[in-house]
Amino acid sequence: MHQVHDHLRRWMGESGMTVRIDAVGNLIGRLPCQLSLLPQSSGVPRVLLIGSHLDTVPNAGSFDGILGVLIGLAVAESFKDRPLPFAIEVIGFSEEEGVRYAQPYLGSHAIAGTFDDSWLTRVDETGMSLSEAIQAFGLDPDRISQAVIAPESVIGFVEAHIEQGPILDRLDKPVGVVTSIVGQSRLVVCFEGEAGHAGTVPMTPRRDALVGASKWIQQVRKTGCSDDGLRATVGRVLVSPNASNVIPARVEMSLDVRHSVDDNRMRAVDDLIAAGTWFASEDDLQFVILQRTDSPSVAVSPQLESLLSNSVAKQGVEVIRLPSGAGHDAVVMGQRFPMSMLFIRHPGGISHHPDERVDVEDVAVAIEVLKEFVTQLAVQEQETTT
Amino acid sequence: MHQVHDHLRRWMGESGMTVRIDAVGNLIGRLPCQLSLLPQSSGVPRVLLIGSHLDTVPNAGSFDGILGVLIGLAVAESFKDRPLPFAIEVIGFSEEEGVRYAQPYLGSHAIAGTFDDSWLTRVDETGMSLSEAIQAFGLDPDRISQAVIAPESVIGFVEAHIEQGPILDRLDKPVGVVTSIVGQSRLVVCFEGEAGHAGTVPMTPRRDALVGASKWIQQVRKTGCSDDGLRATVGRVLVSPNASNVIPARVEMSLDVRHSVDDNRMRAVDDLIAAGTWFASEDDLQFVILQRTDSPSVAVSPQLESLLSNSVAKQGVEVIRLPSGAGHDAVVMGQRFPMSMLFIRHPGGISHHPDERVDVEDVAVAIEVLKEFVTQLAVQEQETTT
Repeated sequence: MHQVHDHLRRWMGESGMTVRIDAVGNLIGRLPCQLSLLPQSSGVPRVLLIGSHLDTVPNAGSFDGILGVLIGLAVAESFKDRPLPFAIEVIGFSEEEGVRYAQPYLGSHAIAGTFDDSWLTRVDETGMSLSEAIQAFGLDPDRISQAVIAPESVIGFVEAHIEQGPILDRLDKPVGVVTSIVGQSRLVVCFEGEAGHAGTVPMTPRRDALVGASKWIQQVRKTGCSDDGLRATVGRVLVSPNASNVIPARVEMSLDVRHSVDDNRMRAVDDLIAAGTWFASEDDLQFVILQRTDSPSVAVSPQLESLLSNSVAKQGVEVIRLPSGAGHDAVVMGQRFPMSMLFIRHPGGISHHPDERVDVEDVAVAIEVLKEFVTQLAVQEQETTT
Repeated sequence: MHQVHDHLRRWMGESGMTVRIDAVGNLIGRLPCQLSLLPQSSGVPRVLLIGSHLDTVPNAGSFDGILGVLIGLAVAESFKDRPLPFAIEVIGFSEEEGVRYAQPYLGSHAIAGTFDDSWLTRVDETGMSLSEAIQAFGLDPDRISQAVIAPESVIGFVEAHIEQGPILDRLDKPVGVVTSIVGQSRLVVCFEGEAGHAGTVPMTPRRDALVGASKWIQQVRKTGCSDDGLRATVGRVLVSPNASNVIPARVEMSLDVRHSVDDNRMRAVDDLIAAGTWFASEDDLQFVILQRTDSPSVAVSPQLESLLSNSVAKQGVEVIRLPSGAGHDAVVMGQRFPMSMLFIRHPGGISHHPDERVDVEDVAVAIEVLKEFVTQLAVQEQETTT
């Protein structure tokens, strides 16, 4: 990460930006406002935030996160010698993935002012706390509160990111405008039956937990397919005792349900819980919910989304509007600042994997879209303040 | 095991038996033949073998195996002072379960003459070979071939064993006569699809291996229920990558199919393979068979089964005839000697578990049945040879 910072510092400096690093490890390059363009009334220049994350997962691809930082850098660079009525800050967020401390969005939480100090005592696999890791990196965890960017100074936040899905690829479009970040329900459920010898216990009175679980997996798929905006997935299955000659006594499963409309998501989860109870009763099993978390969908700023759509159209590209099915720093930033996201086509749609790729022509389109976005924003900003 | 042998040696001695241990660790007590009852023509006395295994699984119950040895001992003891025209050998087999060397029936294979010397080089979890373990126990693995009992000297082999299933318990009968030991097909199969992000990949083009697998698990149950004599079980499931937010790319499963009629079993397996291929094609998955072993059913001796049934009826107990769904030393012994088995009611039917239990009254019935069986066999043996 120090090497990444060194590269970015140099490039940001060459683009006319001043660079700072905050106490949670976000690297921020600032292209200053052209003060002469400021309306007389406002003394402090406002700022447009552009960014994404610098960290990634083990055995990952090359574009998830950092591509959005470099696109931000390219956009800012293009305004190096062009006057703007606001500053641009390009942010390379730290620790979006949450791999080391099982807590995503550490960097964006610090900037949004929603960083929870109790996270500092979490330890990684080696026993090192987050607080110690920040110090070992050369930063002072006591200063994390100073990383906050005041909402009143911010025009908005825009994040460019690979889609991590196949939709733009299938539509053959280079970029897409994000309409919202979907809400998510995460459950751990369990079917409980009774173990028994696979050779001696007759079929009819068996209380085979896997039979109930398999009906439910079918229903999760069916429910997921019942609504275009829904995603419903059983990704994790643990069978006990998991021996070839023993009837399964217990099957624990994850359920992941996402939708941009919270009501639709909650209805799907309710339906699946009812189905689980029903299937369990059919085979004299128990259906138990072991864990459940529900995160609401995050809205984008209608103004910024509209501006982004206009900027896409200006490139002669059909405007594709799509929700983000994955979480991003924009989830956290969108709770404090006007937020928007631009997706870049992701051929194959395979992320968190070395096969992750993007086409350079699509990146060029994304840069042009965001340059246009900044230009239109400048016009708007001057119109509304003068 | 040394302690068990010490107990048995003493009890066998007190019952008028001479005791030997063969090179694979089978403990054998011999009640000699009353030579005066032998027909003039035959110089060498024949022998009736009664036995079961002394080993068990970790965290097991108290009756699986050893109950059959003790029943054999009680039966032999009752003939201590009663003349018989044949010898009785009570065998406590070693290593029926195959826990340590993943090879069941080591003891009975040695006696049946089907011991495979290559097993001696297998190593346990600590790296100790079977050959070394036998030596460490105080025996000479080079003498295993001497453990063979010549088929021409054997009248038959009878094994008493807990049912390890619920049938006698449900019928409220103390004992049952085994009609055959079911054949078994064991497969490892796999559905292969494609991983993807649970939030970003739409439902319809997903290649979710778990969805195919769950259809197949349903079909295994359905096929299993289509024929009273069939047992079909998926007991082991491994999902990859098995993460809550990743569409399953691969699901590996065990299939265990048993039936006393080999054709029915093979037809069920064929049907399930066809179903797997079909379900895979529905979701653009691959269905692959990774492993397969087929063991034919083992017949019991009609003469001994008939004698055993008569002996049950003689106790005023309704004769229940049922196949054995589990394997036993009788599988191996039945390939070389006339074989029969008596099942003892197993309340709850839970085996390989500390909850395993039997009722002492049922054990008494089993002992009386086998005493009658020996008595009738003695009459028969004298009739056929004089």
